[in-house]
Amino acid sequence: MPRVSESYLSARRQQILEAAWRCFAKNGFHATSMQDIFAEAGLSAGAVYRYFPSKLDLIKATSESLLGGLDEAFDVVTSADPVPPPNATFRIVIDTIMRRVVTRDTDVSRIAMHVWSEALREPEVGEVARAVVNGVRDRWADMAVRWKAAGHIAPDADEGNVARTCYGLMVGFVVERNLVGDVTCEQYADGLAALTGTSADVAD
Amino acid sequence: MPRVSESYLSARRQQILEAAWRCFAKNGFHATSMQDIFAEAGLSAGAVYRYFPSKLDLIKATSESLLGGLDEAFDVVTSADPVPPPNATFRIVIDTIMRRVVTRDTDVSRIAMHVWSEALREPEVGEVARAVVNGVRDRWADMAVRWKAAGHIAPDADEGNVARTCYGLMVGFVVERNLVGDVTCEQYADGLAALTGTSADVAD
Repeated sequence: MPRVSESYLSARRQQILEAAWRCFAKNGFHATSMQDIFAEAGLSAGAVYRYFPSKLDLIKATSESLLGGLDEAFDVVTSADPVPPPNATFRIVIDTIMRRVVTRDTDVSRIAMHVWSEALREPEVGEVARAVVNGVRDRWADMAVRWKAAGHIAPDADEGNVARTCYGLMVGFVVERNLVGDVTCEQYADGLAALTGTSADVAD
Repeated sequence: MPRVSESYLSARRQQILEAAWRCFAKNGFHATSMQDIFAEAGLSAGAVYRYFPSKLDLIKATSESLLGGLDEAFDVVTSADPVPPPNATFRIVIDTIMRRVVTRDTDVSRIAMHVWSEALREPEVGEVARAVVNGVRDRWADMAVRWKAAGHIAPDADEGNVARTCYGLMVGFVVERNLVGDVTCEQYADGLAALTGTSADVAD
């Protein structure tokens, strides 16, 4: 019964990964031991090592999983037609990420901050982190194409640069939210609207 | 001769701190031992502990020092009259930070990323990090007041929200620059200009 076996393997892998996420979100990578993860998953060392031979493998798998949640958020926005202007798009993306990625029993956005730190010293994590950045930037570059078509941004705007700035805005929101906690999607989008001159009052 | 003694103490403290920065920028906080810092500073354990009784004290002092460099960058922009529009202001702030804060023998912006991660698990670092965020946001809120007066943003824009978004933009730049490395102040400001509709082509 290879089908059952595969789904079992996949579920068990996810169980371990989510246990690791809970540990990582609370204590970061360095202060989390493999023993912490065995205990959190309720599994033996052997059961965990079968799926993840080392903590680095868990950190890399965790980093990779971040992109999946972000892709989901973009799929929601991409289905909106006509495309909303940048600040409204931004509010929807951030709001969707917060609801889909963050509201499980683990706030994955905290783990993202540990990934960025670890990416600076561990080349293999750096490689995964760069792939995530580039994946998210690609989605923003697609949005830039649609914003152009809708007349929201200049027809000759550099899509790569728009993607760089939009990715940066997302990162900044995550850091402020987790570090200070006093920022909502609405407040952040309102600040962007003020800068982009697209708030109701400026449009008059 | 208390004056000489004070300046000696201050110079020695700075020497230790900068040695710690070099270690932290390279390896983060957790993979840096006090022994690494003694070796990097070329000082005995006793000499270092006299100024910084623990690694946590060094991490806190490092976090605090980030604000000083940022304040310098804002002082440069604040002296510009009339105030440039948001995207140009942003380019100047980022460019100034890069030249003043980053180009010593240590890229302090890398350390900032370790501070954000550590702030999530170590309450004392979190407290310092929040103070830095609030200090930088205050500077952006001051800019928002000047942007209003100059007609760059709507007169009833929420200064706190503008500050939140501008701080987030800075954070995002630091992360992209250190993680991927393919972003310049000009590219980032160009992306913001495209979003704010203030590039030359849109203004026509």
